Amino acid sequence: MCDFCVIHAVKERMLSRRDLFKGGAIAAAGAAAVATASVVAPAPALADGHSTVVDLSHTTSPEFPTYFGQPGITIESAFNFADNGFNVFNISHNEHLGTHIDAPLHFSADGQAVDEIPVENLVAPLVVVDVREAAAENPDYELTPDDLQAWIDANGDMPERCCVAMLSGWGEKTETPEFRGADDAGVQHYPGVHIEATQMLLENTTAIGMASDTLSLDTGKSATFETHYAWLPTNRWGIENIANLDKVPASGATLIVGAPKIKGGSGGPSRVMALV
Amino acid sequence: MCDFCVIHAVKERMLSRRDLFKGGAIAAAGAAAVATASVVAPAPALADGHSTVVDLSHTTSPEFPTYFGQPGITIESAFNFADNGFNVFNISHNEHLGTHIDAPLHFSADGQAVDEIPVENLVAPLVVVDVREAAAENPDYELTPDDLQAWIDANGDMPERCCVAMLSGWGEKTETPEFRGADDAGVQHYPGVHIEATQMLLENTTAIGMASDTLSLDTGKSATFETHYAWLPTNRWGIENIANLDKVPASGATLIVGAPKIKGGSGGPSRVMALV
Repeated sequence: MCDFCVIHAVKERMLSRRDLFKGGAIAAAGAAAVATASVVAPAPALADGHSTVVDLSHTTSPEFPTYFGQPGITIESAFNFADNGFNVFNISHNEHLGTHIDAPLHFSADGQAVDEIPVENLVAPLVVVDVREAAAENPDYELTPDDLQAWIDANGDMPERCCVAMLSGWGEKTETPEFRGADDAGVQHYPGVHIEATQMLLENTTAIGMASDTLSLDTGKSATFETHYAWLPTNRWGIENIANLDKVPASGATLIVGAPKIKGGSGGPSRVMALV
Repeated sequence: MCDFCVIHAVKERMLSRRDLFKGGAIAAAGAAAVATASVVAPAPALADGHSTVVDLSHTTSPEFPTYFGQPGITIESAFNFADNGFNVFNISHNEHLGTHIDAPLHFSADGQAVDEIPVENLVAPLVVVDVREAAAENPDYELTPDDLQAWIDANGDMPERCCVAMLSGWGEKTETPEFRGADDAGVQHYPGVHIEATQMLLENTTAIGMASDTLSLDTGKSATFETHYAWLPTNRWGIENIANLDKVPASGATLIVGAPKIKGGSGGPSRVMALV
């Protein structure tokens, strides 16, 4: 069909659509529009050099575990399709919910707020350090310099300005009490990144981000948050509760951090994905 | 320095850091850690084939204009660094705030909720249709099939599964009343996408997303939301209040939509960026 014909056909069709809307309630018009053909055949359009997008965010709901053990989000309907012709929800939550970013400001007086992180820092080569075997034996396991060295031995030097992510296996436990691992005294037990590994990254790499598939960059039983305090105030960021690290390679993926851009925020739920 | 020396040096340094933490308050430890060197020389690590990341999200704050004209977000401190040793805020907002995604569910009874949009659909070739000249003459301007055809004439067929974005110039007006353009009767005036253009995209392209640099996909004075009702129920998504479209090419960029993954949501603030 030539361009003129296309436009003519669209205009003709719109005349009939206009009749449909004439005097009609929004809800009725909406219901009619639903009949239009849906997008049915997903086939990703990707950045050059990558062929797959892997979702590294968990779905967030009031049931998703939180550091403090309370429900992390309330979701209330403000408008609904049946009554109003469209759906809108109001949401309220602590910034550090679900798969989320810790901005430098989270553990510093004057580090970058979440809206101040340079957007270039939200795209980074992804380094996945697999500590599942050790973590399965010990829920208090802390990723060590030896674990980082094992990655380097297998994959070469860490790429410039990468994100180093701990794959402990906890990402598969979010629907079980084991994810928080709270004992009778309320102390949590899950893996984190040892301060010595954090120092090694600070001093021997140019990593700009760190990620954990648990509720914290520090191990659950930490009372001192050594890794948070060493890492974040240097204007590096962290991701907690990252998902699906077992579905990306140890080396070679590009991480995209869809961090919220809320003025002055200390972090927030983020859509994290990997281009593989 | 050999690997063993690196690890040994890290361990030695950590012994002194442990002394630092011993018995220290969290806040004091945090303040000390701030002395560590910061990330100082941003130089993006990018997906293959791209060399720049462009931020397409506005900064969200209580001052950012909203469709309904009320402040869109409340931000309250839950913990602060001076008293608690770390910063956390609680936030409350309507989902359709700032630079945000409209999920299919926003204008349908049973379209995809924001967490149900396939992650592959959040990465798309970006088509920027520049209507600034017409919009400068007429704030009620609606992007037409002729505008789409002009893009095709200049750039060739639209790429598969692209996002078509309207550059009206409104992205630079967010700090002025002109952004909402409310008249004395409360009717808003800003550009949107004409239903005939929407139908042309639905019928003659495989576009999966649409974006607008104004508060709505439909023009501000629309009472019928024709474009919303034609587009979203087909399981395509929309982005409203997209920023910086004047900083990306008309063709060739890859759009990344950092949509929130909140269960059952109708949309939400999104970190949107372009790989150029």
